[in-house]
Order: sequence, then C-alpha cells, then structure tokens
Amino acid sequence: MIVKYSQAARVTTDKPKGGEGLMSGVSYVGPANRPENAKHCMVAENTLPVGGSIGFHSHPKDEEIYIILKGTGTYTDNDKSQHVLTVGDMTLCRQGESHGIANTGAEPLTFAAVVSE
Amino acid sequence: MIVKYSQAARVTTDKPKGGEGLMSGVSYVGPANRPENAKHCMVAENTLPVGGSIGFHSHPKDEEIYIILKGTGTYTDNDKSQHVLTVGDMTLCRQGESHGIANTGAEPLTFAAVVSE
Repeated sequence: MIVKYSQAARVTTDKPKGGEGLMSGVSYVGPANRPENAKHCMVAENTLPVGGSIGFHSHPKDEEIYIILKGTGTYTDNDKSQHVLTVGDMTLCRQGESHGIANTGAEPLTFAAVVSE
Repeated sequence: MIVKYSQAARVTTDKPKGGEGLMSGVSYVGPANRPENAKHCMVAENTLPVGGSIGFHSHPKDEEIYIILKGTGTYTDNDKSQHVLTVGDMTLCRQGESHGIANTGAEPLTFAAVVSE
C-alpha cells in the first residue's frame, strides 16, 4: 500500500480529544482505507497551531506513537508528567495508558501519529 | 515512553537486507528497549546514502510502515512494481508481503520506519 502525500485525505479536527484549537492533518491510513486486518489502523501527519493541543486521553484498545517532525511541543505522559519535545523526539503510549500533546512553541507543531491494534 | 532524538541509540547497517551501502539511523524502539508486550517492536529513523538501498525482503511475522522525511527514493512494492517516493509519502508492507527501498535521488534519503507485531 502506497499513499502519496499529495493524494492523502486532508482532515481537520476541532479541539481534538477535548484539547484546544483546530488540528489539521493528512490521513494516510484510517477507517476509510485501512486494509482488512492491518495491524496499523491509523497513520497520520498532524499539525497543531500555536497554543493548540490534543487533550489527555486514554488508549484502551490500541497503542500510539508520535514522532515530532516540526516545531516544539509539550507531551503529557501517562503519569501526567510533562516533557518538552523537539524535532526527532518519539513517544509511545502503550495500550491502557493515556497521553496528550500541546503546541507550546512559536510555530506550528507537526508530528507523525501511528496507531496499532 | 519518551525517547529524545539526542539520546536515541545510533545504529549503522551495511548492505541492509542484501541492499547497497551503509544505512545509518536512530533506533527509538528495538530489541534492547522494547517494552514488554508492546505492539510496536521497532521504531527507527533510517538514512540511506545516495545509491544505497534496503534489499527486497519479506515480513512474515510483522507489518512495516515507512514515511519519507527527506530526499527521494524508489520503493519496490510487494508485486515488485516500483514507485518514486518523495517527502511525506507513506508505504505499508502488510504481514506476509515483501518490500524494498532505494535512494535514487541526489541527497540522503531519510525515512521513519515503524514495525508492529
């Protein structure tokens, strides 16, 4: 399966997971095109505006990775500790854990998000 | 789990999967630090030099995503068809399928690689 950036679905989400602002993104794999029984159920590139956030939320059935591509953010880990993330940093939220992320920098925060079941 | 880019293990692989050249990279998640029962068994950022490649190889037990971060490559899909990839393009190699990738551009080719079991 190959998804060109230019052809991937554009998605916007207001106040994602109870966070702040309008998240925009590119959906590579999602409910509309996930191959049957694929382990990866969601693959996306998300961008949060300055001050935007994905609210703290749980992953009861799956596991999610973030890899920071542009900008600076603050990640809230499962234990609610907060960590500054910059380009190239990676986070893993295990099944049963919770997390959130906020754009606390001065430019848009872009990150890859990969969810596996 | 948070892995800072600056603290992630640096890895080099010569002629990966029977390909060409020396692949360098950053290992975020691998055998040395994979959390017990984590679905994501390998998360990395790989860089192939100009002319370098990961040989065509199978994924009998897991599933792998690539997301192109820098450069231009040629991806060999499971059916051996070849596809030019540029920044932001994504590929998914399902369990039971095969794939390979070559740096066919004029600069290093960097991509995120995520493997789930």
